Amino acid sequence: MTRYVVIGAGALGGLLAAELHTSGIESLLVARGANGEAIRAGGLRIRRPEGTDVVRVPVASGPDEASLRPDDLLVLGVKTQDVEAVLQTWSWLPVEGGGVAADLPVVTLQNGLATEEAVLRRFGEVYAATAWIAASHLSPGEVVSPSWPTVGIIWLGRHHSGTDERAEQIAADLRAARFAATAVDDIAGWKAHKLRGNITNGLDLFAGSADDVAQAAALLVAELDSVFLAASIDVVDPATAVATVPALDIGTVPGHEHRRSTWQSFARGAGSEVDYLNGEIVLLGRLHGVPTPVNETLQRALGARAAAGGSTEPIDVRLLLDPALQPI
Amino acid sequence: MTRYVVIGAGALGGLLAAELHTSGIESLLVARGANGEAIRAGGLRIRRPEGTDVVRVPVASGPDEASLRPDDLLVLGVKTQDVEAVLQTWSWLPVEGGGVAADLPVVTLQNGLATEEAVLRRFGEVYAATAWIAASHLSPGEVVSPSWPTVGIIWLGRHHSGTDERAEQIAADLRAARFAATAVDDIAGWKAHKLRGNITNGLDLFAGSADDVAQAAALLVAELDSVFLAASIDVVDPATAVATVPALDIGTVPGHEHRRSTWQSFARGAGSEVDYLNGEIVLLGRLHGVPTPVNETLQRALGARAAAGGSTEPIDVRLLLDPALQPI
Repeated sequence: MTRYVVIGAGALGGLLAAELHTSGIESLLVARGANGEAIRAGGLRIRRPEGTDVVRVPVASGPDEASLRPDDLLVLGVKTQDVEAVLQTWSWLPVEGGGVAADLPVVTLQNGLATEEAVLRRFGEVYAATAWIAASHLSPGEVVSPSWPTVGIIWLGRHHSGTDERAEQIAADLRAARFAATAVDDIAGWKAHKLRGNITNGLDLFAGSADDVAQAAALLVAELDSVFLAASIDVVDPATAVATVPALDIGTVPGHEHRRSTWQSFARGAGSEVDYLNGEIVLLGRLHGVPTPVNETLQRALGARAAAGGSTEPIDVRLLLDPALQPI
Repeated sequence: MTRYVVIGAGALGGLLAAELHTSGIESLLVARGANGEAIRAGGLRIRRPEGTDVVRVPVASGPDEASLRPDDLLVLGVKTQDVEAVLQTWSWLPVEGGGVAADLPVVTLQNGLATEEAVLRRFGEVYAATAWIAASHLSPGEVVSPSWPTVGIIWLGRHHSGTDERAEQIAADLRAARFAATAVDDIAGWKAHKLRGNITNGLDLFAGSADDVAQAAALLVAELDSVFLAASIDVVDPATAVATVPALDIGTVPGHEHRRSTWQSFARGAGSEVDYLNGEIVLLGRLHGVPTPVNETLQRALGARAAAGGSTEPIDVRLLLDPALQPI
């Protein structure tokens, strides 16, 4: 039986390991620092619209506590900016009975387009995945999960394309764990589609009139569409995507207002993923000669904000609309 | 006047900052830990065939001590595996008078093919460079540099191709600092050519008959040639490369036997660059459907060695020749 070793205990990683555990599928959650200590001491608290569940999911603080086994499957649950450090720590660790971690299959849940090649540099069997969830992780040992009974939606497949028996098995396990999970042939197109949604995440840290915010969002997406065209990056047809998304019933969790992952990272003082969201568009623009001034301005502003220690104080959204206003 | 802020004080970074300083071009060497303390306390000791020079190059232990200025040029002197962490630390730091570090030009000296896109994700002005030097860094505060009067050879250009006035200026500054430096139009081809040389670096950690070592080297390079062909990666014509290489006069430094950078990293207990040398070939092979069993076996063996704490005890080179022998 496969054991899911989920490295990274944010909203998605924590929820995934906990729901697998609850459904009777073996999982191990690798959680560091105060978050890991809280989960070890009191379980993972999952705040839902109808109340709070406490799940005593097995926890390891790092590789020393997570002796790898030949039937393990690794799930990368960290943010993109932490993937490289995780790979350097984990890839060549021994597995009980022989071999190394890089022999194991790995599932990549990260936003953006950069993770899979970093993993494929070490691991031969890479399953890319993209998740749509409304969950939040803001306090140690706690996840807010407003969706019920389905907790999130996941598409996965072999990177860069194709599916196989293991992809189908992972999807089945995730369905048992209350995720609407589907193995797909063209996961790269799904990840590109997800990035098209993520490209406006950073706007949660800007403020202004609804019109100005909508205009900024439209400009960010328009630049993405231009660079995807120039870079021949295929995106899943939005109509198909909408048609195949199961209804996700998102309720209200008392005392919680949902904001997206970029805002959550700034709220926790954690590193910023912006260099892999808007920064991916800026990179592709530079490689293919397509200007991306709005994504670049957002990336600079949030980069400087993160370098200064981070805060969620809103930035004037007009910064993104007026090229004459410099972000710094 | 440009100040060269060299981040990373290994053999190349240390030597480059010190030789610039000696030639009257302003430089700042960012050196951490025991190495930084030793250089700060006693200067950088450069052991050469004819004796030891001590260069009191200005040192900073990190970004807090290196207030960036608008005329700074950053030089990434760390190994490839440390590039991501350096970029996350430095890219969005403020520059005196306005702007952020990512506005500054940056020179990438790393082996392999992965660094430039990681940098271009944040920095708009990226000068890729490839260096051929015989230097070593094995002790804090010390570099061994057996070449004199030319200390090394550097090609550089705009990534992914092209050259410009600044590339020419950097090359001129490096020539003043005793490097045979040339601005080239096709730096990506030069970096690919360098990787073709680096692909056998890891063999310094293997032992066996001369024939077996030569056969392993030939297999590693043959796999590289196959994946470069499949991935349409152009390599500078070896004949051209040889013809344009100035004669490098390599002498004997008492008490020093030269080994390549991979061996040096293992000897220092530092991380391994193998995932970006042989691992680049493995990644390209996976992306393009070309088998690379010899590079993969070498990567696994040295990865496992590094994960176990590293050591320079030789591995039997026949491991690379016999697919039936498993590396772990």
